[in-house]
Amino acid sequence: MIINGATLIGGSAVMETGDRFAACDPSTGESFEPVFGASSVDDLDRACMLADRAFDRYRETSAALRADFLEAIAQGVNDLGPTLIERAMRETGLPKARLEGERARTVGQLRLFAELLRDGRWVDAIIDRAQPDRVPARRPDLRMRKIAIGPVAVFGASNFPLAFSVAGGDTASALAAGCPVVVKAHPAHPGTSELVGRVIQAAVRRFDLPDGVFSMLVGAGHEIGQRLVQHPAIRAVGFTGSRQGGLALMRATNARPDPIPVHAEMSSINPVFLMPAKLAEEAESIARSLVESLTLGTGQFCTNPGLVLGIEGPTLDRFRQAAAAALSDKQSTVMLTSGIHAAYVAGVRQLSMLDGVSTVAVGQTPSIDKGFAARPALFATQVATLLTAPGLSQEIFGPAGVVVACQDIEEMRLAAEHLEGQLTATVYLAADDHADVRRLLPVLERKVGRILFNGVPTGVEVAHAMVHGGPFPATSDSRTTSVGTLAIERFLRPVCYQDMPPELLAPSLADDNPLGLWRLVDGQRTHS
Amino acid sequence: MIINGATLIGGSAVMETGDRFAACDPSTGESFEPVFGASSVDDLDRACMLADRAFDRYRETSAALRADFLEAIAQGVNDLGPTLIERAMRETGLPKARLEGERARTVGQLRLFAELLRDGRWVDAIIDRAQPDRVPARRPDLRMRKIAIGPVAVFGASNFPLAFSVAGGDTASALAAGCPVVVKAHPAHPGTSELVGRVIQAAVRRFDLPDGVFSMLVGAGHEIGQRLVQHPAIRAVGFTGSRQGGLALMRATNARPDPIPVHAEMSSINPVFLMPAKLAEEAESIARSLVESLTLGTGQFCTNPGLVLGIEGPTLDRFRQAAAAALSDKQSTVMLTSGIHAAYVAGVRQLSMLDGVSTVAVGQTPSIDKGFAARPALFATQVATLLTAPGLSQEIFGPAGVVVACQDIEEMRLAAEHLEGQLTATVYLAADDHADVRRLLPVLERKVGRILFNGVPTGVEVAHAMVHGGPFPATSDSRTTSVGTLAIERFLRPVCYQDMPPELLAPSLADDNPLGLWRLVDGQRTHS
Repeated sequence: MIINGATLIGGSAVMETGDRFAACDPSTGESFEPVFGASSVDDLDRACMLADRAFDRYRETSAALRADFLEAIAQGVNDLGPTLIERAMRETGLPKARLEGERARTVGQLRLFAELLRDGRWVDAIIDRAQPDRVPARRPDLRMRKIAIGPVAVFGASNFPLAFSVAGGDTASALAAGCPVVVKAHPAHPGTSELVGRVIQAAVRRFDLPDGVFSMLVGAGHEIGQRLVQHPAIRAVGFTGSRQGGLALMRATNARPDPIPVHAEMSSINPVFLMPAKLAEEAESIARSLVESLTLGTGQFCTNPGLVLGIEGPTLDRFRQAAAAALSDKQSTVMLTSGIHAAYVAGVRQLSMLDGVSTVAVGQTPSIDKGFAARPALFATQVATLLTAPGLSQEIFGPAGVVVACQDIEEMRLAAEHLEGQLTATVYLAADDHADVRRLLPVLERKVGRILFNGVPTGVEVAHAMVHGGPFPATSDSRTTSVGTLAIERFLRPVCYQDMPPELLAPSLADDNPLGLWRLVDGQRTHS
Repeated sequence: MIINGATLIGGSAVMETGDRFAACDPSTGESFEPVFGASSVDDLDRACMLADRAFDRYRETSAALRADFLEAIAQGVNDLGPTLIERAMRETGLPKARLEGERARTVGQLRLFAELLRDGRWVDAIIDRAQPDRVPARRPDLRMRKIAIGPVAVFGASNFPLAFSVAGGDTASALAAGCPVVVKAHPAHPGTSELVGRVIQAAVRRFDLPDGVFSMLVGAGHEIGQRLVQHPAIRAVGFTGSRQGGLALMRATNARPDPIPVHAEMSSINPVFLMPAKLAEEAESIARSLVESLTLGTGQFCTNPGLVLGIEGPTLDRFRQAAAAALSDKQSTVMLTSGIHAAYVAGVRQLSMLDGVSTVAVGQTPSIDKGFAARPALFATQVATLLTAPGLSQEIFGPAGVVVACQDIEEMRLAAEHLEGQLTATVYLAADDHADVRRLLPVLERKVGRILFNGVPTGVEVAHAMVHGGPFPATSDSRTTSVGTLAIERFLRPVCYQDMPPELLAPSLADDNPLGLWRLVDGQRTHS
């Protein structure tokens, strides 16, 4: 496999000569080969037109074929072997074990969607049979299935160069749904993106799918992405990134003559609630776990626990002391990009200067003076400050957290009520805390997509029941998830067929159920 | 039951003395008693705050209780008897049989959602059990259920004074989901609204539900509706109405600091495709059916067939002649409001003056010279004109249709491709047309929510498989429907619980499945 800085348009690789950019080594701040040429507006148009042309054929391929296709992509990603891992390490500064784990997750996601396709429940087939003799009027025959929504624009995420980039969760769920995908690769890992993009290209060829099922655009600026989501052929958007970036995409799609759904996963501080009985038992070990979670991957996880709330008193003192000790030992590790690093440094400085906020601990001074090394930091404050200080409850992307002291459970509930929408909330509790937690739970359910108990929020399981979503600004659409099999629903829409001649029905809706699907027939679940 | 012009806020009826308005008899253009006082901004705030306060308790009422509640509303609507029908007739100009049918539909919708609540599949419960021994890391226990999204703003529709107004489909699905509802009543039928609103108020009291589960605002202007969808407590919007109105609500919600989903059902011309073999057999009877459908309810249906496409030639001549004969006999009947009437008259005049558009027939001259009587009209044109004339493919709300002559199937496909998103498309076909229809179907699937065969699009069945939705501008969100049981999904969102102590789990997620739900457990459907 080669990396030569190409834009991938359908089956071809185009070497653009316009705006140049290159990957940057976060540990040194230096860029390295090859040079990439930003995709042109013509590239964008061609990619979208090809996707549009591919759509009708691709969406009606059998689910079994698309399952094989996804598995071939998974195998191809694995087959890149150390080439992929080494390139990704150099582009992202992430350690080898983390990237190998992320590759396993990426491959696992693709395979899970293949399994879902074979299961067939994503079709949601519903049949209400005709009642010719009903009075006052005959009831018609109605059959509903889900079909792919159309070509999808997917934005690679800087913090998941594999699992939420070119062949990541958005691409896997869109391809599974039957949607062609046009990826805008993240400029922080263009070589990793090209390697994976070429794997998908090869799989498209191998299964003789229409060219336009996959294209990949590159570029360091925002313009191409803005244009991509405004292209008439694009019918939905998948994005994981900053709040600013997600809001820009929402504005761009709302300005279309025909607005389209944007699934932007944007911003979350993932509050952690330390209930008193549990904290009394385990203040020190919880503190150590949370510091690990806070600093993992230099804090560059969507589910990073940025806010910890406990009841003021000696046990919270123990927690802060243990957390301070653990954090002080932490090395400064590099961040993904100079932009993320600069925003982190500015955010931490701002936080440290806020009235009512004190610094509990900082990590070790960076051992290198070049590159994007970030020093972990832990702050402390009170609920009164949280409620009034602008920005204190907004995400600082990186290994910085704030411990908030509450007077009592009621103030903790009040603080929770004050928060914006979140991906997760975490509750540390013992049996004696249940009564208090019951008062807190309704607030958390309204605010977040996932509630965890006695564990850290980092590490998002790819599963059927997973919800990696949540009310705005965690995501742009709280009714969905970007991780887990339910993610496919973002890229499907229902179509109803009324009194369709049996010869024209899709197999999923045929009377004899040739696909053996579970269907709802006249209100009853059946797979016969 | 009384109508005294009140705003209903939680359990109370408030007589406002601000901007006054009254219902208007469409057959005379004259207004009649009582006078309504427009709800104030304070009313709006109180309604929304009560809804917000009611939310946590209402959403966790048992589904069985909410089912009983919906059935009590259904019974209450029925119990209004002739009072309701007579008031609605006078306010809307719709005939008695139509309103009795609409009442049956409204009651049926409420009962269908009660049935859905008892079935429980709306919960979509998914359980992935822990795998404590998994390597490299333990897999946590993950359990997902759907919960209500929050208080919902519902806008009464002028053309369905019962089925899409105060206790209509949006309200029924939102209340079923567990969402408090704040209705903005349509000013065209305020008395009908008050009668039904008081029925819901009484049901709230009877089941001892929190006051704020239901409120109803009234007013003749747009401002209160705009403010309603921008209120922080409102978490979703249900609307059926004009494109202009829907777009205004979309703009208002997009301008919120926290955008919320808007389900606006707006605009559709519901193209009808006459395939040649079928038309040769039945040109005359199809023409008569379509004229009936076009003029039903003075053409004031979302699924009114405004565009008919056939292949130019003698059989299409037969169709046009038969349609002209049928339409010429049609009486002019009244429209719902002066605004709808004025827009219809202007739209028809504009259409009749377009180059390339000829008038095929008009209905009988109105027998009355007052009121909002609309004369049915049928026009004819060619595909070339459809593709270029501005507005020819946009909805004229009322009994006006256009027959478009296509040179061949390919041109028919091209015309379909040119159309905006639609609620429905209808295909008249015989066995010999199947090959042609197979070429057309992929375009229709991309463009519409429901495809009908050999029948008229008016008359939307309330069923499990129904999709009353479609790509923009038919609706603001093509992934949903506003009719049928799937409509509940608009007002639900998923929440995942990770490693939750069993004592805290909702019954729908408990190990022993006390509700007997069908659930997905470790990827397998089971109800044990």
